[in-house]
This record gives sequence, structure tokens and C-alpha cells, in this order.
Amino acid sequence: MTKLWGGRFTADTNALAYRLNASLPFDQRLWREDIRGSIAWAMALARADLLTPLESVSIVGGLQQIHDEFSAGAFTFAPDDEDIHTAVERRLGEIVGPIAGKLHTGRSRNDQVAADFRLWVMDAEEKIIAHTRTLQHAFIAQAEAQAETLLPGYTHLQRAQPITFGHWLLQFFWMTERDCARWAEARARASTCPLGSSALAGTAYPIDRAALAADLSFARVSENSLDAVSDRDFAAEFLFNAALTASHLSRLAEALIIFSTAEFGFVTLADEYSTGSSLMPQKKNPDMLELARGKAGTLIGQLAGLLAALKGLPSAYDKDLQEDKPPVFAAFDTLDLLLPVLAGVVATLRVNADRMAAALDPALLATELADYLVRKGVPFREAHHIAGEAVKKAEDSQVKLSRLSLEELQKLSPIFEAEVAEVWDARAAVNRRSVAGGTGAESVRAQIARARTILQNIETAGGGQSR
Amino acid sequence: MTKLWGGRFTADTNALAYRLNASLPFDQRLWREDIRGSIAWAMALARADLLTPLESVSIVGGLQQIHDEFSAGAFTFAPDDEDIHTAVERRLGEIVGPIAGKLHTGRSRNDQVAADFRLWVMDAEEKIIAHTRTLQHAFIAQAEAQAETLLPGYTHLQRAQPITFGHWLLQFFWMTERDCARWAEARARASTCPLGSSALAGTAYPIDRAALAADLSFARVSENSLDAVSDRDFAAEFLFNAALTASHLSRLAEALIIFSTAEFGFVTLADEYSTGSSLMPQKKNPDMLELARGKAGTLIGQLAGLLAALKGLPSAYDKDLQEDKPPVFAAFDTLDLLLPVLAGVVATLRVNADRMAAALDPALLATELADYLVRKGVPFREAHHIAGEAVKKAEDSQVKLSRLSLEELQKLSPIFEAEVAEVWDARAAVNRRSVAGGTGAESVRAQIARARTILQNIETAGGGQSR
Amino acid sequence: MTKLWGGRFTADTNALAYRLNASLPFDQRLWREDIRGSIAWAMALARADLLTPLESVSIVGGLQQIHDEFSAGAFTFAPDDEDIHTAVERRLGEIVGPIAGKLHTGRSRNDQVAADFRLWVMDAEEKIIAHTRTLQHAFIAQAEAQAETLLPGYTHLQRAQPITFGHWLLQFFWMTERDCARWAEARARASTCPLGSSALAGTAYPIDRAALAADLSFARVSENSLDAVSDRDFAAEFLFNAALTASHLSRLAEALIIFSTAEFGFVTLADEYSTGSSLMPQKKNPDMLELARGKAGTLIGQLAGLLAALKGLPSAYDKDLQEDKPPVFAAFDTLDLLLPVLAGVVATLRVNADRMAAALDPALLATELADYLVRKGVPFREAHHIAGEAVKKAEDSQVKLSRLSLEELQKLSPIFEAEVAEVWDARAAVNRRSVAGGTGAESVRAQIARARTILQNIETAGGGQSR
Amino acid sequence: MTKLWGGRFTADTNALAYRLNASLPFDQRLWREDIRGSIAWAMALARADLLTPLESVSIVGGLQQIHDEFSAGAFTFAPDDEDIHTAVERRLGEIVGPIAGKLHTGRSRNDQVAADFRLWVMDAEEKIIAHTRTLQHAFIAQAEAQAETLLPGYTHLQRAQPITFGHWLLQFFWMTERDCARWAEARARASTCPLGSSALAGTAYPIDRAALAADLSFARVSENSLDAVSDRDFAAEFLFNAALTASHLSRLAEALIIFSTAEFGFVTLADEYSTGSSLMPQKKNPDMLELARGKAGTLIGQLAGLLAALKGLPSAYDKDLQEDKPPVFAAFDTLDLLLPVLAGVVATLRVNADRMAAALDPALLATELADYLVRKGVPFREAHHIAGEAVKKAEDSQVKLSRLSLEELQKLSPIFEAEVAEVWDARAAVNRRSVAGGTGAESVRAQIARARTILQNIETAGGGQSR
Repeated sequence: MTKLWGGRFTADTNALAYRLNASLPFDQRLWREDIRGSIAWAMALARADLLTPLESVSIVGGLQQIHDEFSAGAFTFAPDDEDIHTAVERRLGEIVGPIAGKLHTGRSRNDQVAADFRLWVMDAEEKIIAHTRTLQHAFIAQAEAQAETLLPGYTHLQRAQPITFGHWLLQFFWMTERDCARWAEARARASTCPLGSSALAGTAYPIDRAALAADLSFARVSENSLDAVSDRDFAAEFLFNAALTASHLSRLAEALIIFSTAEFGFVTLADEYSTGSSLMPQKKNPDMLELARGKAGTLIGQLAGLLAALKGLPSAYDKDLQEDKPPVFAAFDTLDLLLPVLAGVVATLRVNADRMAAALDPALLATELADYLVRKGVPFREAHHIAGEAVKKAEDSQVKLSRLSLEELQKLSPIFEAEVAEVWDARAAVNRRSVAGGTGAESVRAQIARARTILQNIETAGGGQSR
Repeated sequence: MTKLWGGRFTADTNALAYRLNASLPFDQRLWREDIRGSIAWAMALARADLLTPLESVSIVGGLQQIHDEFSAGAFTFAPDDEDIHTAVERRLGEIVGPIAGKLHTGRSRNDQVAADFRLWVMDAEEKIIAHTRTLQHAFIAQAEAQAETLLPGYTHLQRAQPITFGHWLLQFFWMTERDCARWAEARARASTCPLGSSALAGTAYPIDRAALAADLSFARVSENSLDAVSDRDFAAEFLFNAALTASHLSRLAEALIIFSTAEFGFVTLADEYSTGSSLMPQKKNPDMLELARGKAGTLIGQLAGLLAALKGLPSAYDKDLQEDKPPVFAAFDTLDLLLPVLAGVVATLRVNADRMAAALDPALLATELADYLVRKGVPFREAHHIAGEAVKKAEDSQVKLSRLSLEELQKLSPIFEAEVAEVWDARAAVNRRSVAGGTGAESVRAQIARARTILQNIETAGGGQSR
Repeated sequence: MTKLWGGRFTADTNALAYRLNASLPFDQRLWREDIRGSIAWAMALARADLLTPLESVSIVGGLQQIHDEFSAGAFTFAPDDEDIHTAVERRLGEIVGPIAGKLHTGRSRNDQVAADFRLWVMDAEEKIIAHTRTLQHAFIAQAEAQAETLLPGYTHLQRAQPITFGHWLLQFFWMTERDCARWAEARARASTCPLGSSALAGTAYPIDRAALAADLSFARVSENSLDAVSDRDFAAEFLFNAALTASHLSRLAEALIIFSTAEFGFVTLADEYSTGSSLMPQKKNPDMLELARGKAGTLIGQLAGLLAALKGLPSAYDKDLQEDKPPVFAAFDTLDLLLPVLAGVVATLRVNADRMAAALDPALLATELADYLVRKGVPFREAHHIAGEAVKKAEDSQVKLSRLSLEELQKLSPIFEAEVAEVWDARAAVNRRSVAGGTGAESVRAQIARARTILQNIETAGGGQSR
Repeated sequence: MTKLWGGRFTADTNALAYRLNASLPFDQRLWREDIRGSIAWAMALARADLLTPLESVSIVGGLQQIHDEFSAGAFTFAPDDEDIHTAVERRLGEIVGPIAGKLHTGRSRNDQVAADFRLWVMDAEEKIIAHTRTLQHAFIAQAEAQAETLLPGYTHLQRAQPITFGHWLLQFFWMTERDCARWAEARARASTCPLGSSALAGTAYPIDRAALAADLSFARVSENSLDAVSDRDFAAEFLFNAALTASHLSRLAEALIIFSTAEFGFVTLADEYSTGSSLMPQKKNPDMLELARGKAGTLIGQLAGLLAALKGLPSAYDKDLQEDKPPVFAAFDTLDLLLPVLAGVVATLRVNADRMAAALDPALLATELADYLVRKGVPFREAHHIAGEAVKKAEDSQVKLSRLSLEELQKLSPIFEAEVAEVWDARAAVNRRSVAGGTGAESVRAQIARARTILQNIETAGGGQSR
């Protein structure tokens, strides 16, 4: 037997065409799932009396041997193994003889690969959630340590208002919390067993699909065989979740790259997460963060590429679907490294509180100046305008905003009184933001408590996801 | 007042820069949500004693008047209205005088636009789900009518096995059912109120955020102010869901384009969903379907574009975020037209059952031939090979597969007996696929029943989504 | 006449389907090109004796009247105008009567829209090149003014080696120079006249295609009618060039955003290219730069979207091609604003040479320290290692690198001698890079001269492109 | 020495961070270019007296030995080889001792990798052009064989007008001709030598950059060192050209997939370019064509991904740039297989002229019917309408359009006369399209001649590109 499907063909496949067509170089990664699926299928055939007990024992035993060979790195591919399914069935034949040919009864590679790939993706999603949880722990630990460390908050990368670094770190907890929710939803939706759909029309054999799905821990069986063999929504969702997760990581990375410049100096990366220059001896580069940023771009491309490949496919199964695996594997490999590395970066980050404090220019408190007027009854819009003029006056006079004299302020508005001086206290300004989700110390403590509770509930539940 | 923020500036904005910066051309679409949000904010200020009862009545009244002006198409924008928020506040000042300046107390356009846009997106998601439900009804109705209509099923666009057209149509029910689940999950996650986050650090005023969120029917308040003003996950999810929904529609479209060629002739589009040629008088073109296919491409681009814009943003709010609205609006407008048009296309589709039946070449039953041998104990792999040789022999002899004589078949395998002739019954082959999700008549009826139950449960529940 | 193609149809188009199908909302922008193309076509028909001289005069006169109506904003669309071609032909009929019906002889909307759109794109490309030239002048002028202004050069956003700000600015001259070359090549390739290809097979009338192409200033005629009506390479090239141009602008933007932070303080944006905050009175935000960065993302999406729409189109003309115009129009509008705004930003940029100078930490000269050893015969790799140890020693001792005593240096390598002190001169380090393309003053002057020559040659030649 | 840059670092790189950072797994593919570049650099150093003749002989000899080791598959990577540059320099040290450390004098990995990658890309572009030329030969050969084979031309996948299959095939010649022009332009622009730019500021040593560029066959030296180390336009252009080339191939693929359905039956793929089904014995699937279509999607993603990664990079060299290689390598590998496979598919395509002829329904000649009236003086628009009514009448009467009697036609227009019967000759209709680029036999012959001339001129010139 050279090919599974050679009967009607006269000429051999052209060598280049064979290479273009072969998926083995990447789908061999599915060996675990393929064997697992085949064992479950053999048992389903046995249940339907399509294999005798003896045959099923023999086939399952053969498949377990193949599993052991793969585990031991001892499996050898043959030149004609065009994909992992072919390789496993070929090897099974070598081990158990012609009855191996009974395993493919009532199934097709179309439903087989759909099942294999779903199992792989569901497992990958669990691993990514677990990695994300580790990263979230790092955010919380640093946030707790830095809950009261003041620094400027930025919008448009311009100093805006004072915040705490704990609050700043926690924003990424919530971003990644949404990621976990999406990963979990995608995993739940992926948990649909396509086996029994055969090539496209459903199998003609009395397979108990529900039992088969249960054997493989799928949550449900697919409802339509045509859909089942061509549905790659789960792969697209995987790539979208990967791209959006990476977009969050890219934002963290960008901010830390900027915060670790000599000019900001707010944080120092640990040596073990930095690299040097082949030319410039003094360089210490945030390569990990730059890769996090750059890989977000790559992941966006992998998503766009799969969606473009799926667009306009005409029929149940088209070979174009084979383009689904490389981007999903690549995206997983990226996050599988990136998430733990960033957890390490965050956990080992040295925070330079003095540099942060030094950056707390009084101009960051201009809103407090306006709010002072608001408390005295000035409509905010007018108060904002007066405070804006104060900023301008200070800049023109090249003094700090807090150094404007009471007289100067009163020229802008007679409402200013001596106690206006109290607005120049950055910590007070921070703590005034005690609203839920605000940067005030109390709010941040409450935020940390909520975040810890989420993680604890998950750990108690033993799963990766709170919902 | 020319600008909300002019106090500290000396020079006016450059005219081209103003145009580049202004979001009014597209964000005026948010007028309803902006006014709704401002009314809720005014009430929250009143609750916190930051507005007197009289002031709040006046401001809310003014906002309602603005709402009426927009509804009546009577609102006039001023040259300095750089966005919808500015326009509304400017007009409010004209109506109620300087106390209008109190409305912006404790809030920022950063949290304001985030709230407006979330409200808009949540509403759009409901509309899309409702449109999808209409399309699903059309699938079910046609599927029921065509539950027993036989046609070739295709893989790789090559005839594969006979199926029913009802089964074929229902695959799209399940694709769009997943779409609905995704839309509903995205809507639920979007239902987070950012108001009270102010520019980035949380508002310094004692706003009851929970009450405010409830007033606007948000399910929860945001947990971190920095995250709240920069989170555009809900926009990215919207665009991903739109792209994936469109990818399903593009598959339906591609198949119907091919099925409505002269060569296939399986279906005829209604005149009201077809167009002609300016040159060729005989042409009747499936433009709607081609647009469904093409727009899937455009939507993929809108998703990739927003993700690329979000990548690597450094701080709480960056102006890049303004790029979020045009693609979301465009994607909604596309689906808002495309879904009902495709529902019309499906509902009015004329099915040419005779052309479908004529395409049921016996070669489609080659798997049945192999299965016949399997039932006689031949391992499937060997049976497949024998059937393949039969196909080849028939092709070489230029006869239909079913016309091979028993003698010819027996030359390939002595196991063939006279009753092999029974395999050439396409309907029997179809009905043999009675497994769950299979194309057999019974399975299709059960599938229709399940689909109907899903839609009925939703309608009973009064919402758009089953989960 | 309601539609151009109604003859064979019974039912009217469904109202939503009509809206989905209609391209008038966006293709009305092609009115100038459509009329221009129709005038040329009328003349070609006349040349082929398919119009009498009188008829052609009448038709051309009618078309000119329509042109005037559009120019004056006086053209009124009718409800049945589904696209710009239909609108113009409908109006022509109103003006000149039934002979208007002769204009469409031998052509189709397929070749017509391809011609219109090419003319529009070629014109847009010229405008973008002109805008880019203006931006390049701004780079050169600022570079000349700042040719000797020292600042740290960065890699990985970490201080690397001293450079001049003139050199830094000129990198964008060369990026945009490549952009101009690409725009010009794309324009040259777009200059192919599809008219005469008719719907797909070529016109059946003896049209002199070469003369027609010349009338419209096309460089050549298309070689294959099937290709001519479906080729949208020119639109894809436009979008790629736009995305790559924007990627360059996004890099400029990102760097200037960072350079204009309070922490860097290297540059100050002019008020007329900055905006403020609705909440924080002190804010001065680089919105233009952020939009430049964000819009690069949007443009990437527009490119990906069109390519995805083009993928897998089966036949000469498919309606999917209608998706070509919105992204091209949007991309042009973006660059049409962005390029002049950035030219303004660059031209009005205030350079804070003192802040730049203050950032020239001696550690930036660590490579000079290594090079010092190289000049004394130490292999570079070893010299790099010694200099690295010097950096570490300085950091550990919390002194500037230049403050290490000769003794301390000699502990690292006995080769150091007193004149090592000379390496701590940043300007000397800069000027040592006098190689072509280097940051040395002389090299920068030569670079400016080459850049000026390029622009002068173009202006002399009267075109936008040097090649 | 484990790392090139370890001097200033205390802690070792974290193991996962090392893996994330290491580019060796993919950039080892650049070994040829890296050694070639290093040999040229050694010679440049020697020319500048930075290496003695003896040293340069030794270093060049060592590099040649490394080349031989790689060629023989005998090169062994060390655990600390983080990229190909490090690996080569490490090995050189093992071979020639400490003077290996002189090779990196005055250069940086930043300019080194830019040079290596450009050389690789330029070579890849040449290979792709050569593959495309082979494909073009296949188009021409088939077109010549099928120059007079009639088939329906399609627009919107509906039968439009008769054309010849030769004409149909040639459209792809011109698409790929534009591809070749783009590849050649990209290659010419990539031919810029960045060596001498060092890390960012230009080398401080008197390197003769022009001589160095000439040694490596670069057409020019880079003009600005900052640009030189960060310019990845050539990679983006490569990916755009790949995506657009693939989009052309995807259109060919889609059409041939449809033409090779049982329903069309216009072409039959050779067995050696087809595959079978593991389940359905009769299947013969066009997998190669489906992969061509699907891979177009993947390539669009690779382009979008790189552009997204490049967006917003702040400084001369950022590590994000390392994301440039995997997509370029992957895109090349795709085209390197796909182009020759498609050349094989085209060359071995069996054309079923009888099936094509059978599809020439008279309705395809409705335009001829209208043109008949035009020749009799009826304005085209009216003629089109009359012909449309004839189509409708024929459809309503369920007769072929050509079977309408003269009386029936005359009821639609009295202008019809007996010789109208002549319009029902498809070949005459085809040959009437004798305009340049038309489907008439003569025009197709002329088109073939032009195509052949283009290929001959290139072969004579010895290069891959006509311009």
C-alpha cells in the first residue's frame, strides 16, 4: 500500500506536487490526538459490532504501541506518509496486519483531522489560560508591592495625573482577565465532536456518536455533518484570541520599553531578561519586550491569513482548510514562550520609585486646581479654562505651576484663596480618586482583593477559568 | 467658547490639522448614546450633590431638547464642533447657559466616548443577532421544503456522495448559530460601564458608579480606570465576529454562485435579487452573492486594521483609539444590509430538483460499493481499493459505474454477488446516513426540530440569544 | 428607462438588494473621469464611423454640460442611478435624447469603470507624490538647521551612540524617497487603457484603441481583454504603497511622540499642531502624530481587505471587484491630509538642543572606548568586553563612565593610557563617522546636498519622480 | 566568552527568554550570505589597513572553511549561538584564534543582518522570476494549442460571450508579467548595501563602502545609516509581491477548480497533479489548485503581519525587526513550490473541447443580436433592450434563443430581417473581436507573438526581467 487512495489512479503524484500537498511536516504534531481519536473510534466500531472484540483489542494494542513509539522518539516516518493519519494507519498495518484496514471503516480523514485538531486546540487553550494565570499572579504581586508608589499617569504619553504604579500594573490584570474569559468561551465552543460525520454526509454505520464524544471528553456532538467537516471557527477564534492577547502584551511591552529608557528611568529590567549589543558595550536592551510588541504584529497576520483562506470556500471540505494548522501552531508557540517570559519580566522588574516621584511635576495637578474652583461653585468648564491660563502663565514665566503666587492666581480668578496651596499634594490627589476602579490607595487595595479572589476561586475550582 | 481645552494654547489649530483630528464626521452617529450618557451623568452628579435639583432639571431638559433636535434632523453643527461630545456640550450651553459648564465635572471625553461607543456597539450587536435569526428562519423553511431533495454532496468541489438539499442548507443554520453565540458573548462582555474613570485615574468626585451603570443598563462597572478608558476589546470582538459571520455568508454565497451557473443549474435566484448587464442582454448576475463574498474580504481588513492600530499603544488613552469607530460602523452597515438581503435570497431561491437529480452519477455511490464489501467482511482499506479499481474500469470503458457487469466486478473481487445492484440507489444511500447529524431523512427532520426549538426558546425568552 | 439592463427581468430589484448593490454613494467621486472617458469613447466611436459627426458633437456637448453641472454642484441624481456610469448616461439621454443610447455601443461598464478608476488612481498618485515632496522639503530644511545638533541615537530605545538631529531627520527623507519611487512605478504600471475590452471579450467594433488611449494620456493599451476588466493590481499597489508610506510616517510619529514627552523634552510641537484635554488643563497632546501612527494600522487593514476580496475570484469580472474603491478612496483621503499635516509638524518643530545635549551621557561613548583599544591593536571582540566591564564598574560605583580614573581603567586593561580621556568628546565621536551615510557633519552635509539635488532634478523635470 | 555582549551583565539570560530571543532556528538559513558578507567585510577591513594581509588571509580562509562545513552539512551549532552571526564568529574563533575578534571591527549585527537578508531576498526574487517564466511558457504553449478552442466566457460566473481558451489562458500571462515587473523593481530597490552603517551612526573606520558594495554586487550604498539598519521595505515589498502573485494564482486555481467539476467538465487534471480520498474511491481532487487558493490567504496574512510589526517602531533598530524573516522565508517556500507545480498543472491539463463547445448556448450571442440592430442604426441602448426581450421570450417559451422565429423577433422590432440568423455563429462572434487584446483568432495570435517576444528578449538578455 503506497497511498490510501490509489485505486483509481494511473500515474504517480508528481514529486513537487506531493511535497506541496503533504501536511506531515506540520501535522505530525497531532500524533497524540490522532492516536487517541483512533482508539476511541476503534472502540466505537467495536460497540457497533464492526470489529470483533479480538480485532478491537488488537487494533487498540497496536495504536498504544505506536503511541509508545512516538513518546520514545522511536517512530519512523515512511516516504509515502502524506499526513499523520496515513502514517499511523500505515504503521498499524505493519503491527497488526490487514485488520488495520478495518479501522477506517465509516470515517474519513475529513472528520478525523477535525477531531484531532479540536482536541489539540482545546488543550492548547488550557495551557494558555494557565500561563496567563501565572502572569496575573505576577501583576498582583508587583501591584501589591507598589500599591502606594506614585508616578505620573499618562495620556497621549503626556503627563496627565498622578497615579500609583500598583494601579497601573493592575490594568493588565483586567485585560488578561478578559483574555481568559475569551479563551474559555472558545474552548467550550470547540468542544464539539465531529467524528461520525465521515467525509461529508455522516457515517453509514450505526456509530454511537454520543458515547464516542464522551470517550474523548467532548461536550457535545456536531449537529450537521457538512458543517462538522468544514467548521474551522475554533481555529479562527484561537487566532483572534491570540492576536488580542498579544495586543495587550504589546501595550505592556511598549509602556515598559519607554519606562525603562534612560530618560524615564522608572523601571529597570533584570539582567536575565535583557540582552546586550555586539557593538556597543554599554547597551542593555529590552529585547523581550520588543519581541512581545513585534509578535503582536505577526499574530495579527496569522489571524488575517486564516480568515482570508477561509473566505469563499465552496464546499464541505476543500483542501484550503489545510492552511489552518501552521498559523495555529505558530501562534501557540509564540504565546507559550511569551506569557511565561513576560511573567518573569514583571516579577523581576526593579521599580525606581524615586525617579517616578521626581517626575511628579505640579502641572499634573492642574485638574486639581480646576476642581478646587469647582468646589467653590465655578462651573467646571470655566474652572478648566482658568486653570489652563494658570498653566500658560507658569510656562511663560518658566516656573512650576505650584510656584504661581496667590496674587498671580487671583488675577486669573478672584475666587482663589490661600488654602489653594493644598492642591499641590500629589498623594492627596491620588487618594481623592477613591471611587471604584480609581487610583486611590483604598480603591487599589479593593481592586487587588477582587483580583486575588478571582484567582483563588479558579484555583479552588481546579480549572483555569472563572466563568 | 471655541474649544473645550483652549486655555493654555496660544495659536489656533492649523486648518488641515483640525480636519485630520476632528472625529465629528463619523462620531456624530453616536448622538443618541452621547445624550443618553450625559443625562445619566447629570443625574449622577445630582445624586452626589454636585448639581442642585434645579440645575439637573435644567441640564437634563436641555439635553432632551438636543435629542429632539437630532431626531427631527434640526440639529446644526458649528464649525468648532470637533466631536459629538463638544457639539452637544456647546449646544447645551446655548440652551441652558453657563451651568452647562457643570456637566463635564468629574468626567473626561475619555470615559465619555468609551461609554457612548459601548452602548452603540451593544445595540448593534442586538440588531445583528435579530437579523441572523431572520436568516436562520429562512434556512429552516427552505430546508424543510427540500428535506428530501437529493443532490450530489461535494468535497473539493468534486462530486462525493449524495445528500439532501435540506441537509445542505442546515449547515448554515449551525454556522450562524455559533455566530449568534459569539455576538451574545461579546455583548455581555461589552456591558461594562467606564463612566467614573474620568481621563485615566478615576473621578475625584463621589459618584455612585453602580447606580450610574444601572441607569444605562450596563451589567457592571469597570474595575480599573486606566483599563476602562483604553479598552477597545469590545470593538475588536465586534469586528472579529463580523469577519467570521461574513466568512460564513461568503461560503453560502460561493456555493450558490456555483449552483446557479448554467452548468450546475441547481438553483435559480429570484429576479429581485439579481441584476443584469449593461452590455449583454441575456445576463442575470448573482451580484448580491458576489458582494457577500467580496465584503467578507473587506471585513477581514477592517479587523486587521483595528488590531494593527491597537498594537503597541503606550498609555491609558492615545488618540490612535479614535480609529476604532469607522471600521465598526462600516462593518455594522455591511451586515445590516447583507443579512436581510441573504435572508431574502434564501427565502426566494428556486430549487431545480430535476437538475440536482440528474447530477447523481452512480460514481457518487462508489463508497457504497466499498461498504458493500465491508459488510461482507472485507477490511475497508481493501474494499476502498477494489472500488477504486471499479471506478477506473468504468472510466476506461466509458460506462457509468453502475453499468459494470457482475462478471467485471467479480474480476476485481470474487466476493461481489448479484445483490450488489442494490447499492446504486442514491436515496437508500442517503437514508443509510441516519446517524445524528447525518444526511438521512430522519436525521434531517430531527435536525430541523432541534433548530426550530432553539429559535422558539429564544423568541419565548424575548432575547436574541439562546445561552 | 429605469435600468440599463431591465429587458429580460420580470420583477424589480428588492429595495435592500438595490442599496447593497448600488455603488453610487462612493463611485460618484469618479464623475470627472467618467465623463472624460465617455468623451474619449464618443470620439473613438466617431472615428470608427459609429457616430456621425453631428451625433458625436451632440453627445460630447451633452457630456460637457454634465461636467459643468457637476462642477457647479448642480447635478441631481435620480433614484434609479445605481452607479456613476448610469447617472451620466441617464442625464445624457435627458439632454440629447435617444442618440445618448449610442454612447454605450461596443463598451461595457466593465471596461468603463476600469478606465475611470485607473485615471483617478493615477491622478491620486501624482498628488501623493507632490505632498511627499513637500514633506521632504521640510525634512531637509530642518535637517540643515539641525545638522550639527547633537543628541543620543537610540537602538531598542536605549541610548546607543551620539548622532546629529539633522542626520536623524534625513532618515525619513530616504524612506519617503523610496515611497516616491514606488508611487511612480505604480502609476506607470497603472497607465494601461482597458477601453475596448468591452465586457470581457474585446469590442466587436473597429475602435482605434491606441488613439483612444492616447486621448486619455494612457501610456499603453491592455493586452488581453479578460485581464483588462478584472485587473485590480493597480488598486492593490496603491493600497500597499499607502500602507508602507504610512508605516514610515508612523515611525516618525512614534519617535516624535517620545521625543516630545516631558521626560525626553527633545522637541516641542507647535500649538497649531497640538490639542488639549477636555479635563486636564495642562495637557498639550500630539494628536496628529498619534493619528499618523493609528492610521498606519487602518491602512494595513485596507490593504489586507482588498487582497482578501481579490483572492480566488473565478472569472473575468465579478461583482466583488466593486469592493476596490472604498478602501482606495479612504487611503487617499488619509494621506491627502496626513502628509501636509506632518510637513507642518516637521516645519514648525521646536528643537530643544540643550535637552538633547544634556542626554549625552558618557556611556554613549563606550564604543569609542572599545575603538580606542582597537586602535592600540586589541581585537575588537576583546576591546568590547573590556569596555563592557568598564561600564559595569562605573554603574556599580554610580559614577559616569568618563569619571573612571586611569587606574581603574588600567585594572581592566594595562593598555589604557592618559590620552584615553579624549574619547569622551561626543562631537568628535560623531565626526569620526564621516563615512558615506554616516552621522559626521561632513557626511550629513553631503547627504543634504544629494537630497536637494534629487528634489531639484524633479522640479526641473516638472514631474514628481526622479526615475 | 559565551555571548558577544556579556561584559556588562551580571546574571545569565533566563532560559525561556533565551529561546524567545534566539533567531538561530530560522536565521541559520542565511549562512551563505553571512559568510559571503563577512568575507567582503574582512577584505574591506584589510583595504583600510585594519587587518594585516596575513590576518585577512587567515580570516577569509577560516570563513571559507566554515562555508565548506555548512555545505557539507558538517557545521555544528553550539548552545550559545543565538543567531547565525554569532555562530559563524564563534566558529571562526575556534579555527583562527583571537584574531577572529577583529572581524567585527566597525560593524554591528544591525548592518550585518540587513546586508545578509537583502542578499538572500534578492536571490529569492530571481528564483521566483525564473519560476514565473516557466509558468508563463506553460501558459503560452497551452494557449497556442487552444488558440481556436471555443468556450463560453464568463462574468459573474454566468455565461457571457464566447471566447477562445487560448485567450482565456493568456490573461494569466499578463498578470504574471506584471508580477515579474514588480519582482524586478523590488529587487533593484533592495540592491542597496547597508554595510558600513554599523549599529546606527555609521562606522568610525575608513571603510570604502562603494568597493565593499561592489564586491557583494550591490547596486549602490545606503545613504543614511539610521535608515540603513531599520529599513525593511524590501521585506514588505517581497511579501506584497508574493501576496499579489498568489492572488493571481488563486484566480487561476479557482477557475480551474470550477472548470474541472463534473458539471463543467471543461478540463481534466493530470493524475500526477491530483489526489484521491481516503474514503470515497471515485474521488479525484484538485488539491494543488485548492492549496494555491488557500495559500493566497496565508500570504496575505504574512504581509499584514509584517506591516503590523513594522508599524510605529520608534528607533533605528528595534528587536521587533527580527519578525521580518519567518514570513519572508515562508512566503518564498510557498512560491518556490507553488509556481512549478502550477506550471506542471497547466502543461499537463487535458482540454475537453467538446464539453466547452456544448456549453455554447445561443444566449451567449444575445449581444450579437443587439449589435445586429446597432448595425442597422438602432441606438445600442434600445437594441440591448430589444435583445433582452428576445431572451425573455425564449426563456418563457423554453426554446433556445436562436430558435425564435423571424416573426417572433419582428414582433419585438420590425427591423429584424432574415439574415439575422447569421448572428448565431459563435466563431464568427469571436473573430469579430479582432481589436487589440480581443478574443478573435488573429488578435490571440498577435498576443501570443508579443508574449513570446517578451520571453525571448529576456532569455537573450540572460536575465529574468524585460525592463
